[in-house]
Amino acid sequence: MAKNENVSISVIRRLPRYYRFLSELMRQGRDHISSRELANVMGLTASQIRQDLNCFGGFGQQGYGYRVESLFQEVARILGLDQPLSAVLIGTGNLGRTLALHIDFETKGFRLTGLFDNNPAVIGTHIGGMKVMGMDELESFCRREKPSVAVLCIPKEAAVMVSELLISLGIRGFWNFSHYDLAIEHEDIVVENVHMGDSLMTLSYLVHDSMESAPVSVKGKKE
Amino acid sequence: MAKNENVSISVIRRLPRYYRFLSELMRQGRDHISSRELANVMGLTASQIRQDLNCFGGFGQQGYGYRVESLFQEVARILGLDQPLSAVLIGTGNLGRTLALHIDFETKGFRLTGLFDNNPAVIGTHIGGMKVMGMDELESFCRREKPSVAVLCIPKEAAVMVSELLISLGIRGFWNFSHYDLAIEHEDIVVENVHMGDSLMTLSYLVHDSMESAPVSVKGKKE
Repeated sequence: MAKNENVSISVIRRLPRYYRFLSELMRQGRDHISSRELANVMGLTASQIRQDLNCFGGFGQQGYGYRVESLFQEVARILGLDQPLSAVLIGTGNLGRTLALHIDFETKGFRLTGLFDNNPAVIGTHIGGMKVMGMDELESFCRREKPSVAVLCIPKEAAVMVSELLISLGIRGFWNFSHYDLAIEHEDIVVENVHMGDSLMTLSYLVHDSMESAPVSVKGKKE
Repeated sequence: MAKNENVSISVIRRLPRYYRFLSELMRQGRDHISSRELANVMGLTASQIRQDLNCFGGFGQQGYGYRVESLFQEVARILGLDQPLSAVLIGTGNLGRTLALHIDFETKGFRLTGLFDNNPAVIGTHIGGMKVMGMDELESFCRREKPSVAVLCIPKEAAVMVSELLISLGIRGFWNFSHYDLAIEHEDIVVENVHMGDSLMTLSYLVHDSMESAPVSVKGKKE
């Protein structure tokens, strides 16, 4: 498939949703689906789906729609899930520990290869079968294993310094849970800042709004 | 402030970001800020900021900009953070436990009032000072405490049934981590589906993209 160089971030952010919905359709044993029906289950328009997929070459057949399994595999390939990236996780407090145990990195395009912390009480302990290493082992680990992504679960105060260190060790992307919007100066470094609190505050707005007015003025959207 | 009834979901989703950035400006001791500078730190345009805030009445003064603290307080009020909602959390496995301990519900507009699980091994234990109750206690708890929001950390398979039960008990909104897009039939029920894996897959795309092309075709965006 030909990848268009100017794909917008909104289209890219919709790809994981296609992946999830197509995966569910496969689980249901669906062989093919029209863009109209796919649009309907995903809460999009058929035209938006055609436009989105055309960014990557387009995969539908007039009058037949999309083959579920082959579209699923194309989306997985576009997302890079067939070429897993090595990832290290920094900070194994409550959140880091839960991510290490709960997130299925393998199916999302990553191999979690190293866990790091600076707390002597947890260094050497195991999380989900992986040994927690000390921060002093990070450099030699990165030189040896060449991870390309870091999951940051460290306090805001440490995030800037640790991210600079990681970039100098070859890290190209961050999944950042540090409650701090990393604004990396390097043009070729990618950051996904995760703010779970934003989602919670949005919910606060929507619930208050739905309680003030019935029927509601803003409806829940499929995501 | 007058709330416009037709505020788009995109504007609503930006409000928590305003809240975070304004909170940081207050921490830095800033008294006021121009829409141009606020736009710059948030990665938006000044015109977009004016449009966003005009949905709620507009708070700037020509030639002076925004008073940081009063805008912060207005945004907090718009989000409903000054009228906290009672929330129950269902499912205290790894993820539920971490959310209970890690998320600062109080500053996000919620009071976490009850934790529930169906696992006899955890019922009666404490998480962050709160006792985990059995699912058989849910109904009497809801009738007594009248929570309006539920945090769902239960498997996909259980999510549909439990969400219907919760709606019958008065729940108006869901923060849904069940790996299942709740598509609630009830018009006045609000759902925030949280898919952390989507963010991870987006990162996979962006890192692969940045490794294929230097300089990159899609740059990291402030979020």
